[in-house]
Parts: sequence; structure tokens; C-alpha cells
Amino acid sequence: MRFCPKCGHQVNMEIPDGDNRERAVCPNCSFIDYDNPLMVTGTIPLYQGKVLLCKRNIEPRFGYWTLPAGFMENGETTVEGALRETLEESGSEVTIKQPFSMVSIPHVNQVHLFYIAELKQPDFHPTTESSEVELFELSDIPWDEMAFSSVRKSLEFFVADHKSGDYGFHEDSILISTRPE
Amino acid sequence: MRFCPKCGHQVNMEIPDGDNRERAVCPNCSFIDYDNPLMVTGTIPLYQGKVLLCKRNIEPRFGYWTLPAGFMENGETTVEGALRETLEESGSEVTIKQPFSMVSIPHVNQVHLFYIAELKQPDFHPTTESSEVELFELSDIPWDEMAFSSVRKSLEFFVADHKSGDYGFHEDSILISTRPE
Ligand SMILES: [Zn+2]
Ligand SMILES: [Zn+2]
Repeated sequence: MRFCPKCGHQVNMEIPDGDNRERAVCPNCSFIDYDNPLMVTGTIPLYQGKVLLCKRNIEPRFGYWTLPAGFMENGETTVEGALRETLEESGSEVTIKQPFSMVSIPHVNQVHLFYIAELKQPDFHPTTESSEVELFELSDIPWDEMAFSSVRKSLEFFVADHKSGDYGFHEDSILISTRPE
Repeated sequence: MRFCPKCGHQVNMEIPDGDNRERAVCPNCSFIDYDNPLMVTGTIPLYQGKVLLCKRNIEPRFGYWTLPAGFMENGETTVEGALRETLEESGSEVTIKQPFSMVSIPHVNQVHLFYIAELKQPDFHPTTESSEVELFELSDIPWDEMAFSSVRKSLEFFVADHKSGDYGFHEDSILISTRPE
């Protein structure tokens, strides 16, 4: 951020009073830019024990398989966001069963949340965002063509829980080795 | 947002190509403002079966009791945010036990996440943000002086789970009646 979104004045990087982090601060109107992580919400959509995956028709990770998910919007709950993204990306209507996985990805300032969901009907289709939408047996998940680590982790948790018959809530983080810590 | 944070030009409200929501869009540099929900992360800090609460020394809800929690920052995981906020608001160092509750509050564009945590030592103290920090027996929780609905809900879930002896992961939403739905 170089300019104040409220008044258009150039901003300075400084630590506001009572704060302990550098923020963009407007010297004209005192606006402070708190830049915070984004939530991505989506589903693991199931039908008769198969899982619905989407082949990405957009960057990043064009051509790789993913679970339907996307940035949560203002004014919606995490569940509403997951339902919306599932419909937008896979053309399918689902019923939410339970929150299943939450993965923090601090180097991109994101938290990814997935719900276990059931397709109401075996209705789905390619969309603007997905060139293919397909049901996979758990034994046929294309592990080598996964778009994102959070999706891979969530599916790994799901396959493990499916084997044990006990579906819990899973939390994890993806930390890259270049992270200063 | 009235001015572009990248170039300072006045923005217009319009639906970007391929999108379906009105956003602030810069006609000069094509910047698009995606304004998304904020995550609040915190803990239910326990010591010998008692829960640590903080009396708010800041607005909003000055003088009411809350769990230590605050806005997640870029570059941290949900757990790291919860630990940081717990230390900042209560002066206590805790060990995270499990993710416990997640509450969407769409009318303020927030998602609140709480972890069950254990104090390492009975060390805590008032802070800039908390005029009092105190351990409460579950039977003595000041329900009528709770700062936020998400905190009340999380503590209600906790007390119920404590009775049953089975601590799950709880998800809920706080919807105000004026919500257009
Ligand atoms: Zn300004
Ligand atoms: Zn611009």
C-alpha cells in the first residue's frame, strides 16, 4: 500500500501507538492499514464413497486437481462460503456434514478450511474455473497431480479417517523451509 | 475505499470481469479491492480446571469479561496467533491442547477461533488490554458480563463438554435478525 484508501494521501510505514508492528499509516487522516490473513473455505464433496475433484482451469496450478474451495467473502459464514465455492467450481449442490480440516499457510497469509459434504444428487459439471469435474474412488485419487498442499493434506486426513472409521477435526500448518524461525 | 492504495487514483465500484460482486476497482492501474473476512484467534486457558478470563480495558465492550483473543496477523498460523494474543492480553504462557470452537459472525465479517489451552504456570497479570485477569471456577463464570457472543458460546460449549467428559470441535454462527435472508 502506497496511498491511503480513505483520502488518497501517501502513507508511511510506522508502528502505530500501542501497537508492536509496522503498518501503513496515513499522516493526513490517521488511517491504519491492518493487513490480515485470508480464509479459504471449501468442501470434500462425497457421493457413494467417492470424492469429487476439480481440474483447475485457472492459474495458479492450472491443470492440477483440487477440492472446490475459494476465498471467503464478506457477509457470509464459513459454511456459506464453502457451499458457494463448491457450486461455483464444481456445479454441485452439497449438504455439509462436519468441519474436517484447517490448514494455516503463514508464508502466503492464508488459512484453508474444508468441510466433509455429501452431494445431494450426482449432478456436477465443468465450470469457468474447472475444466473437468470428476468423482474418484479414494484408491484412485491422483496424488501426483494435486494443486495445493492443503488439499493433499486434507485428502490424506480423509483417507486415513475413512480407514479407521472415525472422522475427527484436523489441524495442520504448511511451513516452508525458508521461513525465518 | 475511495482511493487506490497502489496509485492514489479515485476508485469506482463495479463488478470486475469474471466476478459476480461489486468491488472497488481502480480505472488507472486496474487494482481490485477484495475485502475479505478477518480471523480472530484465541484460547480457553485452563489451570487446575479453572478458566482464565480477562476484563477488557479497551473498547469495544470495556469492562466486560472475555477470553484472550485478537486479530490474526500476517505470517503466523492460527495457533501462533492464539498464543500471541493470550500472552498479550493475559500475560500467560499456555500450551495448546486442541482446536475447540469456530464461530462465524457474518454481519461483522469475522470468524472467531478458540483453542483449549493449559497454563504452564499460574502466572498471569493485568495488561494494557485487560484491567483484570482472573481464574474462574466453571460454576463462577460471569455469564451476565460476557463481552462477546462468540466467547459466551465457546464457554457454553466448554462447560457442556466438561460435563459430558467429551471435548469435540464446535462450529456455530451468530446471525443478527436484521440480516437480509
Ligand atoms: Zn488518509
Ligand atoms: Zn490504482
